[in-house]
Amino acid sequence: MSATAPPTPPSLPGEPDRPSRSRPQEWRAPLSERLEGRPVGIVGLGLIGGSLGLDLQAAGLDVRALVHREATADRARQRQLASVVSTAASVLEDCALVVLALPLDRLLDPDPALLRALPPDAVLTDVGSVKQPVLDRWQGLLSQAGRGGQLGLFVASHPMAGTALAGVEAGVVGLFQGRPWVATPDGRTDPGALALVEALAKAVGARWLTCGAADHDRAVAWISHLPVLVGAALLRAADQGSGAAGLGDLARALASSGFADTTRVGGGNPELGTLMARCNREALLACLDGYQEAIGTLQELVQHERWQDLAGAMDDAQRLRPTFLMPPGDTAPPAP
Amino acid sequence: MSATAPPTPPSLPGEPDRPSRSRPQEWRAPLSERLEGRPVGIVGLGLIGGSLGLDLQAAGLDVRALVHREATADRARQRQLASVVSTAASVLEDCALVVLALPLDRLLDPDPALLRALPPDAVLTDVGSVKQPVLDRWQGLLSQAGRGGQLGLFVASHPMAGTALAGVEAGVVGLFQGRPWVATPDGRTDPGALALVEALAKAVGARWLTCGAADHDRAVAWISHLPVLVGAALLRAADQGSGAAGLGDLARALASSGFADTTRVGGGNPELGTLMARCNREALLACLDGYQEAIGTLQELVQHERWQDLAGAMDDAQRLRPTFLMPPGDTAPPAP
Repeated sequence: MSATAPPTPPSLPGEPDRPSRSRPQEWRAPLSERLEGRPVGIVGLGLIGGSLGLDLQAAGLDVRALVHREATADRARQRQLASVVSTAASVLEDCALVVLALPLDRLLDPDPALLRALPPDAVLTDVGSVKQPVLDRWQGLLSQAGRGGQLGLFVASHPMAGTALAGVEAGVVGLFQGRPWVATPDGRTDPGALALVEALAKAVGARWLTCGAADHDRAVAWISHLPVLVGAALLRAADQGSGAAGLGDLARALASSGFADTTRVGGGNPELGTLMARCNREALLACLDGYQEAIGTLQELVQHERWQDLAGAMDDAQRLRPTFLMPPGDTAPPAP
Repeated sequence: MSATAPPTPPSLPGEPDRPSRSRPQEWRAPLSERLEGRPVGIVGLGLIGGSLGLDLQAAGLDVRALVHREATADRARQRQLASVVSTAASVLEDCALVVLALPLDRLLDPDPALLRALPPDAVLTDVGSVKQPVLDRWQGLLSQAGRGGQLGLFVASHPMAGTALAGVEAGVVGLFQGRPWVATPDGRTDPGALALVEALAKAVGARWLTCGAADHDRAVAWISHLPVLVGAALLRAADQGSGAAGLGDLARALASSGFADTTRVGGGNPELGTLMARCNREALLACLDGYQEAIGTLQELVQHERWQDLAGAMDDAQRLRPTFLMPPGDTAPPAP
């Protein structure tokens, strides 16, 4: 197997990349071979960065992590989130691949010291939940940094995995297993860089796919960003409404797994929710319009006691849910 | 310990019943002692009835189940959901306690053969998700059936537990563990009957509480019935919106655990969702109004780019969620 791969053509929007049995074997070169003994760098050890560090070390890789604060570094070392953890950007020296596991705001306005410390030949990827602004920003940054020839080494990507937690305590083993990890290459993306990030995703058991950045942002608005606001609004309404009726304590005592699940992402990391909305505002506003129409339709059926139509709408919902949870592309086995 | 308990005063609305260390020991008499060797009957072996049958048998009790169809009875016997399963109502003979684990519509319009077969001295309880109509209906039925003196033996109750499944395959061990089980006694409820249902709930590890039926119905509208419509509307909007943009396949390929959780109850049993709305229409309409106001407020913050206010709203949501999931009453240990 060779560490250099032929170009990977991005799949068409709406057509997730699916590994084919007819592909030559070198497409499958695992991460460890592609890295040729060089370490993987991770910038930020929150939920995504920390989980990645745990899984990559478990796969036998050398992981170097850069964090902002000394207290975070201490705790990350205790939790063994990376082989080496430092607050000095020089920790990224020698890394062949650097994962920018930063919140969207710090990704869009990165520390100049970080930019200077990134190895010039390293493949860079991010894990942000909005892709077009990140892709635009980093291609601009790399161009300004005099890395014009290396623009293609930035691969915008997004592992679709989360829990209700954030910060250095949040990282867990196996977070990415079976979850989508999507990259949004464009005409400038280096095929070898893209293949390396694909190998990274597969090393942690994720399901790899690619699409255009704008399509990504509009699609995740529906299935990731809208659910955050839907759940947050439920918490807000249930608190205010039950409280106004003098039933706040009773509603809380009766709340069970259904309420817990429906509000999990809505009651999750508030910075993440706000940044998603800020960086994907237009797409999210379109989703909110569509959502209000949908809830208004259901409300009308209840209002007018159209029970057969409501039963039909609930049947539709039951039929639709599995189509979102078992996508046809869900056949790629992990290739660590 | 005595099998006869002193009256249990219903807790005030909004004040979940909490066991106190100073209570006399007979309050704690477990279900097996209270039954004095007589079996427990379960009518219907769907998610709730089947799970109850499994847990009660595991606790060493004799469980007799009545189901509607022979095919269901066959499968229930294979799954060992009860000690005896039959389509003949006479299976309930001798039962000291009968749990009506029926859908709301069949609970509100029960089979006359079932009514005739209920042992006259048995305590009856239901598991419906709306309580006032059930309480009214069954007190009326028992009165018509010439059981005027036995009206108090009906205890309206509601175990707050669910999964995405329904039917004879749905029952699982441990479904009620740590979940609320609420009863809605009124002035006519027999204290001994209430204590027997409390012992039933505790035998399967549920957290017992009581409140008024009308308060129950308004409270669960917020934390149980509204989430069903919120999730169903999300499925509807995500399907239609992503499809209209030509991004239906991509949205499906990217949907992950956040979308799955937010839509779990919305994409669940459609009959249950429709019946909840039908039987609790007024309360649910008030919730839908409140919810639309809440989502509208968030939409306005995004629209007008009021990011600090949005961050505040998301902070509120994160702070509110645990107040619903860790109610102060969550301290009752299971007492099988």
